[in-house]
Amino acid sequence: MAVPARQVSSAELDRELGLRTGTTFRQTGVERRFLSTTETAAQLAARACEAALADAGLRWEDIDCLVAASATMDQALPYNAALVHAELGLDHRRTATFDIGASCLSFLAGLDVMSYLVEAGRYRHVMLVSADIATFGLDWTRLKEGGIFGDGAAAVVIRKALPGETGALLSSSMVTLSAGVNHCRIPAGGSRFHPRRVAGPIEPLSLFRMEGKSVFRLVAAELPDFARRLLDQAGTAMDRIAAVVPHQASQLALDHLAKRLGIPDGRLVDIFARYGNQVSASLPTALHLALSEGRVRRGEQLMLIGTGAGLTMGGMVLTY
Amino acid sequence: MAVPARQVSSAELDRELGLRTGTTFRQTGVERRFLSTTETAAQLAARACEAALADAGLRWEDIDCLVAASATMDQALPYNAALVHAELGLDHRRTATFDIGASCLSFLAGLDVMSYLVEAGRYRHVMLVSADIATFGLDWTRLKEGGIFGDGAAAVVIRKALPGETGALLSSSMVTLSAGVNHCRIPAGGSRFHPRRVAGPIEPLSLFRMEGKSVFRLVAAELPDFARRLLDQAGTAMDRIAAVVPHQASQLALDHLAKRLGIPDGRLVDIFARYGNQVSASLPTALHLALSEGRVRRGEQLMLIGTGAGLTMGGMVLTY
Repeated sequence: MAVPARQVSSAELDRELGLRTGTTFRQTGVERRFLSTTETAAQLAARACEAALADAGLRWEDIDCLVAASATMDQALPYNAALVHAELGLDHRRTATFDIGASCLSFLAGLDVMSYLVEAGRYRHVMLVSADIATFGLDWTRLKEGGIFGDGAAAVVIRKALPGETGALLSSSMVTLSAGVNHCRIPAGGSRFHPRRVAGPIEPLSLFRMEGKSVFRLVAAELPDFARRLLDQAGTAMDRIAAVVPHQASQLALDHLAKRLGIPDGRLVDIFARYGNQVSASLPTALHLALSEGRVRRGEQLMLIGTGAGLTMGGMVLTY
Repeated sequence: MAVPARQVSSAELDRELGLRTGTTFRQTGVERRFLSTTETAAQLAARACEAALADAGLRWEDIDCLVAASATMDQALPYNAALVHAELGLDHRRTATFDIGASCLSFLAGLDVMSYLVEAGRYRHVMLVSADIATFGLDWTRLKEGGIFGDGAAAVVIRKALPGETGALLSSSMVTLSAGVNHCRIPAGGSRFHPRRVAGPIEPLSLFRMEGKSVFRLVAAELPDFARRLLDQAGTAMDRIAAVVPHQASQLALDHLAKRLGIPDGRLVDIFARYGNQVSASLPTALHLALSEGRVRRGEQLMLIGTGAGLTMGGMVLTY
């Protein structure tokens, strides 16, 4: 994982915004978050990739595919993976690169999809990286929305399990509820609200907007059944899951998830107070922390789950 | 395939730009191109999907995954496939959706990747759609760059071949030469050149810029060997390929491709004069026209090949 150099506590935000001490933390649930100043998404992604490569004990010549699975673009063109490839100085390596995107669930979609390609032997080692710098597009006067986000990146190396290894993907699913397509959005940045096509200033359209209550209503009705089917398909049950690694959407969303899914005490990986909502980087950062803090042992099962702009629900049950 | 309602001939552009008759065609090689006025990328994509579904004789309940493989974003958030899903009114269908992106080669990357998922039985029928509206970001005073682009969309349905069917993917490859990462680019639209992060006006940064000669130099040295390896891996040779379907980068690029790859006369699918460079929609539109015009018969081989911003080379040899 990688984060920008600058970290900002909620106490600092209180002072900056002229609020009574404790206001920002009470409204956001975030103690500190990391905010990019000069770092680009590709730079954070590259640092996460180098860390994953070292952890895996591999060298770049072992990696034959680099997939960027981020929620937002670094530039409109070229795609994120090409920018990360350039940032890593891999030009002399003849790597395949492409992006896989599904907003906050991009990492899940990428892990799911690429597992089939390593299983089939198409690629030997896939570097999968999620990186988002979403905090430039925030309205800091709307603290509950703006104050929860942080920047970051996280990467994993995927390969086929060797005989005798426990790692396995037991079930995986993704479903789009596009009735909520406008519940979370950044209108500008693409062709629909191009500066040439929009009469007024573009800046207001490049800010993130979320209708939290509408998201909650749509998701609350669906997620418990969705999680149950994931467990059923994996032939397991919630009480056998060592850790549930969710997308870190908000403190409220995490609390509801624990309750609605009946996650046993201490099994939910909640890094929200330490990092905020890091968009696509949330899930792999939480996964990295859960594994490196020893919350899942080899052979134990874990669940990844979340909801992102789309709206899309996604989840996966794995053996570590 | 789908195109916007408005078509613009090079003769019309001559008049609009106050140029001597024939100038635009001579500089671009495009007779007419389709330009979006009110259409969004998701609308064009949805029309292409409906056409592909009808061609395949399927209904939406048969499609369990929708993948958008475009070069540019429709909005910064959510991702393209969710917007297409909403545009198609598929909310009551519980479809998986995500994006696969590799600029102009997004369709190739998507076809390649998703072939493994249908082969493994993860999805039964995948709708894969490419749609780009790039023409808002053009500088029409630079005709050789701006005048070659057109808008459009094209879609295919992918499924596993049944016993006795000839369809097969024989070889596929993708390589990124990120020394050329800045040769084709639209800087703004993402977090790197966010309106909040850039001092000056954002519009100049949201225009497409290409260093054609640098692209050519990098690619000309690499593409012939790349194509030869694709043919070798497929166990075939250029004289056995019924049709070569290239990305329609420019007339010069197409002419050089035919010469450098030794493509026999009449085998190159060149739709450039009729549609221009439709970014990610070029390859599937050319494929659709090649198949619907009867240029490839069942059991014959075809090659898809191209280069896109990244720079990335990609190619595939298939049996139809």
